[in-house]
Amino acid sequence: MPADTTSLDLDALEAAHADLRARGLALDLTRGKPSPDQLALSDRLDGILSGTYRHDGTDLRNYGGIDGLPTAKRLGAMLMDVPADAVLVGGNASLEMMFHAMLVGTHFGWDGPGSAWTTRPSVKVLCPVPGYDRHFTVSERLGHEMIPVPMGDDGPDMDVVESIVADDPDVAAMWLVPKHSNPTGAICSDEVVARVAELGNRARRGFRVIWDNAYAVHDLTPEPILMASLWAACEAAGTTESVIHVASTSKITFAGAGLSFLAAGPETLATLRQHLSAVTIGPDKVNQQRHVMLLPDIDALRAHMVRHAELIAPKVDATVAALERGLTGLARWTTPTGGYFVSLWTPPGLATEVVGLAADAGVRLTPAGAAFPLGHDPEDSHIRLAPSFPTLDEVRLAMEVVVTCVRLAIARQRASRDGTGEAVQPGPT
Amino acid sequence: MPADTTSLDLDALEAAHADLRARGLALDLTRGKPSPDQLALSDRLDGILSGTYRHDGTDLRNYGGIDGLPTAKRLGAMLMDVPADAVLVGGNASLEMMFHAMLVGTHFGWDGPGSAWTTRPSVKVLCPVPGYDRHFTVSERLGHEMIPVPMGDDGPDMDVVESIVADDPDVAAMWLVPKHSNPTGAICSDEVVARVAELGNRARRGFRVIWDNAYAVHDLTPEPILMASLWAACEAAGTTESVIHVASTSKITFAGAGLSFLAAGPETLATLRQHLSAVTIGPDKVNQQRHVMLLPDIDALRAHMVRHAELIAPKVDATVAALERGLTGLARWTTPTGGYFVSLWTPPGLATEVVGLAADAGVRLTPAGAAFPLGHDPEDSHIRLAPSFPTLDEVRLAMEVVVTCVRLAIARQRASRDGTGEAVQPGPT
Repeated sequence: MPADTTSLDLDALEAAHADLRARGLALDLTRGKPSPDQLALSDRLDGILSGTYRHDGTDLRNYGGIDGLPTAKRLGAMLMDVPADAVLVGGNASLEMMFHAMLVGTHFGWDGPGSAWTTRPSVKVLCPVPGYDRHFTVSERLGHEMIPVPMGDDGPDMDVVESIVADDPDVAAMWLVPKHSNPTGAICSDEVVARVAELGNRARRGFRVIWDNAYAVHDLTPEPILMASLWAACEAAGTTESVIHVASTSKITFAGAGLSFLAAGPETLATLRQHLSAVTIGPDKVNQQRHVMLLPDIDALRAHMVRHAELIAPKVDATVAALERGLTGLARWTTPTGGYFVSLWTPPGLATEVVGLAADAGVRLTPAGAAFPLGHDPEDSHIRLAPSFPTLDEVRLAMEVVVTCVRLAIARQRASRDGTGEAVQPGPT
Repeated sequence: MPADTTSLDLDALEAAHADLRARGLALDLTRGKPSPDQLALSDRLDGILSGTYRHDGTDLRNYGGIDGLPTAKRLGAMLMDVPADAVLVGGNASLEMMFHAMLVGTHFGWDGPGSAWTTRPSVKVLCPVPGYDRHFTVSERLGHEMIPVPMGDDGPDMDVVESIVADDPDVAAMWLVPKHSNPTGAICSDEVVARVAELGNRARRGFRVIWDNAYAVHDLTPEPILMASLWAACEAAGTTESVIHVASTSKITFAGAGLSFLAAGPETLATLRQHLSAVTIGPDKVNQQRHVMLLPDIDALRAHMVRHAELIAPKVDATVAALERGLTGLARWTTPTGGYFVSLWTPPGLATEVVGLAADAGVRLTPAGAAFPLGHDPEDSHIRLAPSFPTLDEVRLAMEVVVTCVRLAIARQRASRDGTGEAVQPGPT
C-alpha cells in the first residue's frame, strides 16, 4: 500500500520514528563498497596464476617496470578509452595516482619547479558539486582553494567552468567523475566532453583536468553506455597534455586489492613517470597479471560487469522505488543508469537533520555535506545514498527509515514555520 | 692459481681486457635484486588463501583498514623490533612509505603547517655515505640539501652527526640503513643505536631519523645477528617520536609484490595515518593475509631467511674471494655478514674508469658515485657490487672482469704517473 505522500502528520511521523528507533537497527548506506557477492565474482584471482610467474620474458615477482606490464596497460587503456602507450599501471588505489598527479602540479610543476602551482598567488581547483569527497580531501590536503561548480545531468556547467577559467589565471585544475558520477550519476554529454577538451586551450599553461573515470564500465543498463572519447577530442583540440585520465578495478574486481591506471599526454606522462620513479621501484606486476588473466579482453570485461549489474541494479531500483513511494512531491532524487549512488535532495536546510534522524534509527548515511568541498553544502539539502553493500532486504529497510526521516524533518519544518506562510520546496534545481 | 697481485703489466692487462671484450659477455651486477631461485622460495603466495578471503571478521577483498590487518602489523613489528600497535602496513614499496614520511615533514609538518621543514631557510638532511641511492633521490626530489656523513663499520660517524645536529638548526632528518647497510654492510653498534636515539634530544623539534631496516633479518651467518633495539633506546631517551622505522618483505618474499611497513611514535603515527588517509582508501589486505600465512611466526621467518642465505652466501663469498685473489694490496672492500652488497674502493680517481672498462667488457656495474648524494663520490673510488641476481657462475665470471678492470685502471694510472713518484693508495680509510 503506497504511503500517503500528501499527509505529513507530525505526531504520526514522530511515532513512526520512535518505532524505528526501538527496533535497534544497524544498517549502513554510507560508502560505495561492493557487496560480498560482487567481490566473489573475482574470487578466482588468488591462485589464477597456477604458479606461473613469468610473462613475456618478465619475472613478475621481481623489481622493475614502472609503467606496468604491457598487457596490464592494455587493460587500463580499454577501461579509459585511451592508447595503451599513454597508460601507467599503479597499486590498489587510483586515489594515490590522483594524489601524486595533484602533488606534481602543486609542488613540482609540469614544466619544472618554476611552474609549480604554488608559485601562483593561490591554487584554485574547480570542484563540480555534488562531487566525490575524497577528491576534495586531496585538494584540502594540498592547500587548494576549491571552487564549486554546479554539476548537471550531462556533466558540469561548462558555461561556468569556461567563464572561471577565462577570468582567473590561478585556476590550476578541475576534478571530474565523467560517467555515472559520484554521487549524482551524471554522464558527460558529447558536448561537455568536447568543451572539457577545449579547456586546455582556454586555461593557463599547467592546467589539468583530473578525469576520474571510476565508473567507466559500471552500467546498469542492458547495453553498454558509450561516451564520446575525451582522448580523441583532446587530440582534435591539441590538448592531450591538459587531461589526466584515471581508472581502477576497485569496483570491478577486489575493492582493496585491484589495479589503478593513469593516462596522460606524452610530456605529462614523462613527468609523472619520473616522479613515480623517485617514489617506488615499480608496481605489483604479480597482481597485474592476475587481473589480465581474469579480464583478458573487452568481452570478458563486459560479461563480468553484467554480473555486477545483476547484483547492484535491484538495490538501486529498491532505493529509487522507496523514494518514489514516500517522497514524490516532497524531495527530488536521481535515477542512475550506472555507478554506485543515488543522490537525494531534501528541501533546503534539512539534510543534516535527516542524517541525524536516520542515525538515531540505526541507519548510517554519508554525512550531509560530504559531497561538497570542506563538507559544506550551502543548501544543506544533498544526501548521498549508497545501496551497493547491504543486502536487498537491508536496503529496503534502510530506505523505509530514510523516507520516514525525510518526511519527519519536513513535517517538523512545516510545523515550526506554521503561520509564516513560507512554502517548502524541494532542493535546488 | 692465484693471480699475481704485485705485477701490473699494462700491456698484459690491456690484452686481457681486449680478450674479455671479445667474449661478448652480458652480465649485470647493478642492482640488489633477488635471484629467481630466491623468489621461488615464496611461490606458494599466489593461491595460499585457498579461496578464504575472510579473516577475523574482515573481508580482505573490500576497502578499508588504513593500518593494515592486525596480523600483518605483527609481522612488521617482528621485522622492525617495535610494538605492533606502532605499525602501519603499506603497499609493495617501503620507498613509497619513506617518500610520504619525508613529504609530510617537508611540506605538511609534524606539528601542523607552521612546522613544515620548508618554513626554514633550508632543509638539510644527513646522508651517511656510501648510502642507498634511492634515499638520496627522494631527498633530491623534495629539494633537500644533502649533507654527507661518513659511514663506518659500526654505523655513521656519530661524532660528526651530533656536531652537525647541535650546530645547525636547519638539519631536519637523517637517512640510515642500520643493519647490513646498503652498500657497505655496516651494522650499527649498540653505542650507535643509543646515540641515534639521543639525537631526538639534541636536534630541533621536527627532526626525524628514517631508520630503513631493509635487511633486518637478512643475515648470512649461521646464527641470527641481533641488534640493540632502537625502539627501546628511544623509549629510554624519551625520543620515540624522533624515529620513523621502515622495513619490507621485498627481499623476503617477492621483490615487486610484497608488503612494506612503517612504525613511529604515537603522534608521528597519527600524523602519517591522517596523511595516508587522504592518499589511499587502504592497503591491499589480500596480499597482507598471503604474507601472514607464508610467514606466520618468527621461526617460519628465520627458516625462510636461512634458505635465502644458502642461495646468496656463495655469491657473496665468490665476490669477496675474487677481490682477495686479484686485488689484495691494491684496493679494499667489505666482507658483509648479510644484506645484498659488497663495497669496493679503488684507488682514488678510478671508480668511474673501472665501471666504464667493465661496461666495455659486457659487465654492468652500478654507476660510480651512485652511493653518494647527487651521484658525486668526491674520491671517485667507491663501487657497489650486487652479486645476488646472477648465477654463481656468472658472478665468478663478472668478478674476473671487475678485477681485471681495476688492475688495468691502476696500471694505466701508474703508467701515466711514471716518474712523478706519486704513491698509489687504496681509497679512503
